[in-house]
Amino acid sequence: MNNTVLASWNDGALKQTLLDFVARVTKEGGPDFVRPAERIATFDNDGTLWCEQPMQSQLYFANDRLKGLADKDPTLKDRQPYKAFLEHDLKTIATLGKQAAFEIAFATHAGVTEDEFMGAARDWLASARHPKLGRLYTQCVYQPQIELLDFLRANGFKNYIVSGGGIDLMRAFAEEVYGIPPEQVIGSSVKTRFEMREGRAELFKLSELGTFDDRDVKPQNIGLHIGRRPILAFGNSDGDLSMLRYVKTGKGQRLALLLHHDDAQREFAYDREFRLSPLVEALDKAGEYGIEVVSMQRDWNRVFAD
Amino acid sequence: MNNTVLASWNDGALKQTLLDFVARVTKEGGPDFVRPAERIATFDNDGTLWCEQPMQSQLYFANDRLKGLADKDPTLKDRQPYKAFLEHDLKTIATLGKQAAFEIAFATHAGVTEDEFMGAARDWLASARHPKLGRLYTQCVYQPQIELLDFLRANGFKNYIVSGGGIDLMRAFAEEVYGIPPEQVIGSSVKTRFEMREGRAELFKLSELGTFDDRDVKPQNIGLHIGRRPILAFGNSDGDLSMLRYVKTGKGQRLALLLHHDDAQREFAYDREFRLSPLVEALDKAGEYGIEVVSMQRDWNRVFAD
Repeated sequence: MNNTVLASWNDGALKQTLLDFVARVTKEGGPDFVRPAERIATFDNDGTLWCEQPMQSQLYFANDRLKGLADKDPTLKDRQPYKAFLEHDLKTIATLGKQAAFEIAFATHAGVTEDEFMGAARDWLASARHPKLGRLYTQCVYQPQIELLDFLRANGFKNYIVSGGGIDLMRAFAEEVYGIPPEQVIGSSVKTRFEMREGRAELFKLSELGTFDDRDVKPQNIGLHIGRRPILAFGNSDGDLSMLRYVKTGKGQRLALLLHHDDAQREFAYDREFRLSPLVEALDKAGEYGIEVVSMQRDWNRVFAD
Repeated sequence: MNNTVLASWNDGALKQTLLDFVARVTKEGGPDFVRPAERIATFDNDGTLWCEQPMQSQLYFANDRLKGLADKDPTLKDRQPYKAFLEHDLKTIATLGKQAAFEIAFATHAGVTEDEFMGAARDWLASARHPKLGRLYTQCVYQPQIELLDFLRANGFKNYIVSGGGIDLMRAFAEEVYGIPPEQVIGSSVKTRFEMREGRAELFKLSELGTFDDRDVKPQNIGLHIGRRPILAFGNSDGDLSMLRYVKTGKGQRLALLLHHDDAQREFAYDREFRLSPLVEALDKAGEYGIEVVSMQRDWNRVFAD
């Protein structure tokens, strides 16, 4: 076994599956060879590449934006669902469901240009800290996944993010942190309005949802943005199941992976009870569907870089 | 002037503009240097990279599909707008307007999977011939543009298609003909339905339009798919004007180009009167907007490869 790659992955069946898969699809002249242009890998982001507990970063980012809006309109502090966001009242937020919670989060940025949003997102990512882990959000990424992204890229793969998170927030850090450029980020998005303002063309964010990139919408958006069926996909919740099955049931060698958060000591332990992104069917039927379950506790010797 | 590149472009001011622009943005340490990741170029397809006269290929493709549907339901032959399509009645089709004409074309493929569509599109492209030029549609691409795509790619650019044409029809040939992979093709699209069928995940095309990628929608879709403002754009009609202005009004070096079809001898001569894709404002205001007008007659010494 090659110990210079995937160093944060424990030796064992799971790591061997990863190494074998990549060896097979890259072996020129071999029966399972896949030409580089078709080596597409898609990764969920929240809970797969970085922490999503106690709630997704998108919601913390919106909350900080909401604080500014509440300064201008103090009545927001007493109105739901804004009150719940401003008070980090996860229990109330979770009752909204993932899509509604995210839609409210996205709506806090209505009227902002894409360039302004990018600036605000970068400022926030450079200073805001995760409430439980006490570190920058961009330091809440999983080191074994960074190594996996590097390993795949070194073997000619093109890595994509396909996440329910807002497409622009992810684009604000994905290139620097994951080595994934903006055009390889697919996510939820709001509609925009094109307008000439002071001689400059701008895209303004609207409050209307364009796409909520979860469940069946993930493979639909892969079809729209990529136009090829990926050969590897990695997720961590039922929201990723359609993507995992879309990838796994393609012809030829395919690998579908599911991260199970079973490590309360080093990160968090949760699955079916997490209302903002439950893991039930994907876990119960992983065997039947041919999905490989990655155990954070068993398969990773390190979770974060530091 | 370098004669080994852009051989089908005549020496002159326009060719020099192209060469100078690329030289400036690729000069490391120079004031206008753009790092490779940000060297994004976007091209319209119909009328910019290949022929769109007497009507766009998408409509011919739909027509051939419609013939099959009319065999099953002969009443289509007497019903508009199907009658007009089946009879290649361009005058009636043009009265529908571009979006309506294309929507009808897209709807002829409802119910097929993305994989089935790709097979049908490839079969059609391999055999159907342009009604006026008598050659395969994939041989109706402009040789000077193929050279420009190559030249940009050799200088670290990533080329995209951003077209009103159907995204999947373009993806069926763009990689082979233009060297542009499916994930770098943006176009009009219908919504899809995700479904497990006989153990295999499939995306089925619906008749409902997802996006009609024309006018303001072009920069909006660039924002959605690419997430960066391109530094070069090339179009040929008012449908491209928002994209051209979006690119041209960005910071730093930017190049916006407009192909003027003024060559009835070698191709076609048309602009404001072409109802399926008129060119009026972009031509009249090119100077004011900083858009470079390419004259097919003056700037190209060859139109097609043969």
